Amino acid sequence: MPDFDTSLPSIRQIQSLITDKKEVELKLVTDDLLVGKIFWQDMECICILDHYDQKTIVWRQAIVYMKPKP
Amino acid sequence: MPDFDTSLPSIRQIQSLITDKKEVELKLVTDDLLVGKIFWQDMECICILDHYDQKTIVWRQAIVYMKPKP
Amino acid sequence: MPDFDTSLPSIRQIQSLITDKKEVELKLVTDDLLVGKIFWQDMECICILDHYDQKTIVWRQAIVYMKPKP
Amino acid sequence: MPDFDTSLPSIRQIQSLITDKKEVELKLVTDDLLVGKIFWQDMECICILDHYDQKTIVWRQAIVYMKPKP
Amino acid sequence: MPDFDTSLPSIRQIQSLITDKKEVELKLVTDDLLVGKIFWQDMECICILDHYDQKTIVWRQAIVYMKPKP
Amino acid sequence: MPDFDTSLPSIRQIQSLITDKKEVELKLVTDDLLVGKIFWQDMECICILDHYDQKTIVWRQAIVYMKPKP
Repeated sequence: MPDFDTSLPSIRQIQSLITDKKEVELKLVTDDLLVGKIFWQDMECICILDHYDQKTIVWRQAIVYMKPKP
Repeated sequence: MPDFDTSLPSIRQIQSLITDKKEVELKLVTDDLLVGKIFWQDMECICILDHYDQKTIVWRQAIVYMKPKP
Repeated sequence: MPDFDTSLPSIRQIQSLITDKKEVELKLVTDDLLVGKIFWQDMECICILDHYDQKTIVWRQAIVYMKPKP
Repeated sequence: MPDFDTSLPSIRQIQSLITDKKEVELKLVTDDLLVGKIFWQDMECICILDHYDQKTIVWRQAIVYMKPKP
Repeated sequence: MPDFDTSLPSIRQIQSLITDKKEVELKLVTDDLLVGKIFWQDMECICILDHYDQKTIVWRQAIVYMKPKP
Repeated sequence: MPDFDTSLPSIRQIQSLITDKKEVELKLVTDDLLVGKIFWQDMECICILDHYDQKTIVWRQAIVYMKPKP
């Protein structure tokens, strides 16, 4: 697998969102909209923690966009 | 093919789910939701075992998200 | 092109299904469900033989899941 | 770009279909079904010639399956 | 990034369409059909010029097929 | 990861759009149409700034086309 380039702006922004425990909206290719805090990211996936502390592992390939919850 | 990096958090989490025989929900790009225990994973696929012990081989490229069955 | 890794569990399982001439259901990204015996596989495609001995070459990129016909 | 591996079964089958000028049905991710003779293939695309001798360049990434027209 | 292989038939055909300023129809994964002249191509994208001289940058990953406008 | 090739026409055009603060329409695989100014781009994502100065990180894999807002 290629390296996980932590100097990429997008990777760093997500890292900030993890540290700041900000809520985000994650739009997926199925048109689902997940809402929660980002718990961790790796090269393949991003893990979201919802209001009930349930973890959802989202595959990066399925992500359309991410934005801070207004 | 690139190596299957077993040190990745997402790969390790799935490995734990296999060991613990936890039930998961697997959302797919076709909007299907598969429910079952993860039986094995490799670089290309994840195998799910349902209530009737039927095995379904799911291609990773088609996975949107995975979460523990509540 | 990368090598076709015949030691992968998913590749080996499909190889067994070819040898055993077991019927499978193949779910595709278009939501089509193909039913038949797997005739051959290579790195790009899987070939399915239906009841009328008609061959369909399916691109791996379009496969969502495969399961033995119940 | 990686090499175009002409020894792959799927590539060779398509090459035979080109030589034999057999009609095929090509199912695409948009659910379109193209019918025609395969004119040429390269690593990225497959070119289809329809009844009106019109050429359509199809991207491989968008192909779901191909089968001989019954 | 891999090289942009200008000897590929598909790349050369598109290059001809640019030189000849032929109108094409571009079918996209969203089922959109763009009509216009191809302005330029690179490894990632193809730029289309419509009747109002408006440029649209289309990502290759989203292209299903291209054909000359009848 | 492969390098981010800033000499690519598509990358340079987007860079110009960032510098010129031009509004663009971004069509996504989910059929969503985002409107805003491009804030930054990296190899994986493009960040859009809307009228309310809200940032949306869009994954490149999910982009269909981009055009200047008329």
